[in-house]
Amino acid sequence: MKGLDQNRAEYERLIEVFKAHDIGYFFYNGGGDSADTCHKISQLSESLGFPIQAIHVPKTVDNDLPITDTCPGFGSVAKYIAVSTREASYDVKSMARTSTKVFVIEVMGRHAGWIAAAGGLAADDRNDIPIVILFPEVAFNQERFLAKVREQVEKHEYCTVVVSEGAKGPDGKFLAEQGTRDAFGHAQLGGAAPVVANLVKQALGYKYHWAVADYLQRSARHIAARTDVEQAYAVGKAAVELAVAGATARMVTIVRKADEPYTWETGSAALANVANVEKFMPRDFISADGFGITPACRRYLQPLIQGEDYPPYRAGLPDYVQLQNMPVAKKLARGFDLK
Amino acid sequence: MKGLDQNRAEYERLIEVFKAHDIGYFFYNGGGDSADTCHKISQLSESLGFPIQAIHVPKTVDNDLPITDTCPGFGSVAKYIAVSTREASYDVKSMARTSTKVFVIEVMGRHAGWIAAAGGLAADDRNDIPIVILFPEVAFNQERFLAKVREQVEKHEYCTVVVSEGAKGPDGKFLAEQGTRDAFGHAQLGGAAPVVANLVKQALGYKYHWAVADYLQRSARHIAARTDVEQAYAVGKAAVELAVAGATARMVTIVRKADEPYTWETGSAALANVANVEKFMPRDFISADGFGITPACRRYLQPLIQGEDYPPYRAGLPDYVQLQNMPVAKKLARGFDLK
Repeated sequence: MKGLDQNRAEYERLIEVFKAHDIGYFFYNGGGDSADTCHKISQLSESLGFPIQAIHVPKTVDNDLPITDTCPGFGSVAKYIAVSTREASYDVKSMARTSTKVFVIEVMGRHAGWIAAAGGLAADDRNDIPIVILFPEVAFNQERFLAKVREQVEKHEYCTVVVSEGAKGPDGKFLAEQGTRDAFGHAQLGGAAPVVANLVKQALGYKYHWAVADYLQRSARHIAARTDVEQAYAVGKAAVELAVAGATARMVTIVRKADEPYTWETGSAALANVANVEKFMPRDFISADGFGITPACRRYLQPLIQGEDYPPYRAGLPDYVQLQNMPVAKKLARGFDLK
Repeated sequence: MKGLDQNRAEYERLIEVFKAHDIGYFFYNGGGDSADTCHKISQLSESLGFPIQAIHVPKTVDNDLPITDTCPGFGSVAKYIAVSTREASYDVKSMARTSTKVFVIEVMGRHAGWIAAAGGLAADDRNDIPIVILFPEVAFNQERFLAKVREQVEKHEYCTVVVSEGAKGPDGKFLAEQGTRDAFGHAQLGGAAPVVANLVKQALGYKYHWAVADYLQRSARHIAARTDVEQAYAVGKAAVELAVAGATARMVTIVRKADEPYTWETGSAALANVANVEKFMPRDFISADGFGITPACRRYLQPLIQGEDYPPYRAGLPDYVQLQNMPVAKKLARGFDLK
């Protein structure tokens, strides 16, 4: 098992703690790395003679876990990005003739372009919005990108660029790392959007604005998709049922039965088939020119942003529940320092 | 009248067009510059013998018009920033011990700190969130800022910084202009957030993330404040009523009657008293250390973000109305080129 040797002491301590507190179930909520950890705990606990039922509960805005139709968290981020892209695009459109012509929004997704793809949903048959997407899966070609932006601006008077934080040049270097330095000459981390905006300005002379949604997108519970919220509850419930039925080393999955109306149910997969596999955007989800989404991608994404699920408000703001996070009393006498 | 001489030909043409189409009312929706334009049109039209009833309808996210209690548009942006700041802060809090400790969000407001102040609403008696605000009205003091951030992180494990795009150093230079250059050495426009985040990283070593909300904040109709929407309709209605009653060169205002419960009515003010006056955050709205809002500021802001007013949705996205913007047939034979 890759990585286990480096962290063996930590895993062993964890199982020692489980044993001391008589914990037999381990539910781990997260993405690929957590799935991997969950898998290791299950295997190691068995080899140490205290087998723990380890169940992975999928949850990652990156939507890059294999087998499951989608990952809870993603649908709501997708909705946030689609809504924000539509709203900002209409803002730009209203002034494009005399002001900003190109708006660049940077979205999360270091390796996979699922969130960037959601920007494409802002346009549909009733909303003719010119959107150019830069996916991590497609090597950035400066010349073709600038030609595409110019073409859109000449046709629509404006253009919105959705750039993934993971967009890379042909040399494999992140766009976000190409360029900006602070006054002291330190390379500035983050910021594919300003790099792309500056490029447009230098080459085409268009006035621009840019936004970096960063954590705003993944914490935006106020605009969560109801489908996503339902799936989040369902995978939690299914995880407990799996454990009660005696399963271990499995991940709960969402199984799509039909696109429209969207029907789904929960299922499960062996963690051995999940760990260390990243699900990228398939080529047939990306348009031939590399800058947009295909109808197949739209059929996949559309149900995931469906429905609203507003939180309760108090004094004009969402009234979020806060966990108390009260630790139980320590049972092991010996301490343990994390490296 | 300042500026009128440079644009006299344009103003004269405008009034010529009004005359040709027998237009007697002019309603102008906007901020300080529009108020000024509206005022000039009223005065010039009179001197040209075709007096137009020019009424200014306040609308600016900057909230910097004088006399009126607030400006439609502002309450919804304030709500967006308060909501987003709360959401992202809880995201950071959940991982602060082992990951990001400082989150920086950049908000609009080139001159006045009203939107930045709204970030302060994210924290209240039930939400103990450490927020450090950088207002345009308070000269940035690097040493005191870093001490404040360190103090908050030591106490809370994390800290959220709300920086106005208009935050300036003691030399009067925008923070956003201090620093970043692209690979070609061009100064990069925009981006106070990365400058501040980098500063924190260099001086304190804390892991950071930053967001720039840019147009997302001002176009976010999906999270509009109901109070704001009601006021937007009310000022439009009041403007028409003012015109019908024979008024000219006036701006509709919102008059606050009480803080809690918030009661208000529309009124009006002479444009002569509005044009070229910017309303900044009063000193007693900013905490003594310059990094927060006072109870007086909270009493002012709180009602403005009150209530939700969700748009209709279709296929998971807001179904926004689009104006047809159909021009009437031209009546003047002679063309006119804008400079």
